[in-house]
Amino acid sequence: MSKLQNDLFLRACKRQPVERTPIWIMRQAGRYLPEYRDVRAKADFLTMCKTPELASEVTVQPIDIIGTDAAIIFSDILVIPEAMGMELIMHEGKGPIFTSPIRSEQAANLLKEIDPFLDLSYVLDAVVMTKRALNNRVPLIGFSGSPWTLLAYMVEGKGSKNFSEVKKLIYNNPRLAHSLLDMLADSIALYLSAKIEAGVNAVQIFDTWGGILSQEDFNEFSLQYMVRIIEQIKRKDEPIIVYAKGVHYGLDKLAASGADVVGLDWTMNLGSVRNQIGGKVALQGNMDPTVLYGTHEKIKSEVEKVLSSYGKGSGHIFNLGHGILPDVDPENAKALVRFVKEESVKYHI
Amino acid sequence: MSKLQNDLFLRACKRQPVERTPIWIMRQAGRYLPEYRDVRAKADFLTMCKTPELASEVTVQPIDIIGTDAAIIFSDILVIPEAMGMELIMHEGKGPIFTSPIRSEQAANLLKEIDPFLDLSYVLDAVVMTKRALNNRVPLIGFSGSPWTLLAYMVEGKGSKNFSEVKKLIYNNPRLAHSLLDMLADSIALYLSAKIEAGVNAVQIFDTWGGILSQEDFNEFSLQYMVRIIEQIKRKDEPIIVYAKGVHYGLDKLAASGADVVGLDWTMNLGSVRNQIGGKVALQGNMDPTVLYGTHEKIKSEVEKVLSSYGKGSGHIFNLGHGILPDVDPENAKALVRFVKEESVKYHI
Repeated sequence: MSKLQNDLFLRACKRQPVERTPIWIMRQAGRYLPEYRDVRAKADFLTMCKTPELASEVTVQPIDIIGTDAAIIFSDILVIPEAMGMELIMHEGKGPIFTSPIRSEQAANLLKEIDPFLDLSYVLDAVVMTKRALNNRVPLIGFSGSPWTLLAYMVEGKGSKNFSEVKKLIYNNPRLAHSLLDMLADSIALYLSAKIEAGVNAVQIFDTWGGILSQEDFNEFSLQYMVRIIEQIKRKDEPIIVYAKGVHYGLDKLAASGADVVGLDWTMNLGSVRNQIGGKVALQGNMDPTVLYGTHEKIKSEVEKVLSSYGKGSGHIFNLGHGILPDVDPENAKALVRFVKEESVKYHI
Repeated sequence: MSKLQNDLFLRACKRQPVERTPIWIMRQAGRYLPEYRDVRAKADFLTMCKTPELASEVTVQPIDIIGTDAAIIFSDILVIPEAMGMELIMHEGKGPIFTSPIRSEQAANLLKEIDPFLDLSYVLDAVVMTKRALNNRVPLIGFSGSPWTLLAYMVEGKGSKNFSEVKKLIYNNPRLAHSLLDMLADSIALYLSAKIEAGVNAVQIFDTWGGILSQEDFNEFSLQYMVRIIEQIKRKDEPIIVYAKGVHYGLDKLAASGADVVGLDWTMNLGSVRNQIGGKVALQGNMDPTVLYGTHEKIKSEVEKVLSSYGKGSGHIFNLGHGILPDVDPENAKALVRFVKEESVKYHI
């Protein structure tokens, strides 16, 4: 860690003093960047994920182009279910689709446990290659979907409005749901440990669909498995970030999950959440991603609001409350990064 | 009010003593009922809305078939923008679509102010007809979308994942957004007043998309307009319900909005919310709609959880946290109503 030229992100994760607030952006290696689209024109999405040279190239792009304080390895949360044996199609416009969703014991029995060093070695190769390309400029983040979020995709087969199929599963066959979540938790822990071994400096668990559950169901079907993963990840000092979109009611539990950082969506009040759990964890977030559709003046004023809501002192990693949208002007992303770097200094004096 | 054979719903809205907890279900007049589908087979959705005999028939169905304690007039929140001059298509599978979304001053200038007695008289006729058909068995609820929720549809033109277009509008042309919200608020207040005059016993404002806004944006672009509507509605004693999905952070403000009842989605803890605002308003909700995919045993246990979370005393109207889903077995909806009627008695002794 000490070799890094810019370790602001890692220090903020540990709530250690920083000279300014670090920033990275969820989905920063993505379609809003023309340089990304140039790579994407040569290879489809899954090929990019599976070709370490390409994954590494787009991972480094935002560091060079927009100047964020951390890189996040380009990949997709659905590579785990694919490695378990599910056929995954990335459909232009419709998003990812599993051709045979898991809705029965028989289908579940066909899934195989993964060995990340064999089944997902392309991700680990991309990590090694990216570390070399970054050359200690900024830290590299690895990530995974949470067991619940992966299960939701595996059962629905695609994005969903009401998540009817996965809800049917947990209410009508909770035993099967738990056995799948068990298997996913173990696979994810192995996967994130392997990424750390390959060189990532931090990991983030995305519980994108935690917020569609009632509070009790969240505890039973999502939280406990994330806690188990956090316990199982083999790490030295690498921070763990948990991002649970919409889980406004679970902040105390997320703060007690063993994670170092809790990521917040834009409906949370950063200052209130800091009062509630800021003594236990760092906070990441939480500007509304659509603010990047606004003028530079609007973006600057929203940056100020987020920074002043958190207030003085370390323990804040600036980010959006969800991934950057594909039709955002990259100049606006650059302006965001610049404003955070400039405006945050006064909160660390 | 006193003429009603069953006024449990109205008493609970006013936090007056009741013998048991009343229940109605959002979207109870809907596709899950075979009797509804029989009517729907004869007429498309908008024709049903605009034919008082048909609207009235499906409004009364759930009272007869599943036994809820209130009826809600069958209609759609988008009839207001349609009456303002927007072409609305109900697309099977894709949902409602406005063929020319409002994204410019010019487009906005073409919208006309509505006179509900002229432009939406079919809804008022349906109310009168339904009151007659209900024959004082249960109260009848009227409803509208909130200004923000209607604006979101009018600008997006259809359902949306990120609501990019309406966010662009509020960030880049807030003046236009506010002038549209102004106009919508006035129209909605007139519309709900006309419904009350026609005979509805209560009204509900649906802020389905309030929860996609940051806290500050919610105050600016949604809440203040709902407050204005509530001030403007001409009513005697008719309760007003505000349902703002995902607005976990705005409960105190909703409780101070002038509404009598705050509707909650299933991610809220009913007991905690009662502690927070139960002294000011009644609460409506909030079982996860997907629980109706479960067994009767599961449904009963979830009913018990919701009832015991609220606890003893009046001020609770049982409902789902969102509309009933179209593929729910009507037997499960019947079981839900029966369980609430049976199990809630002990909370009112």
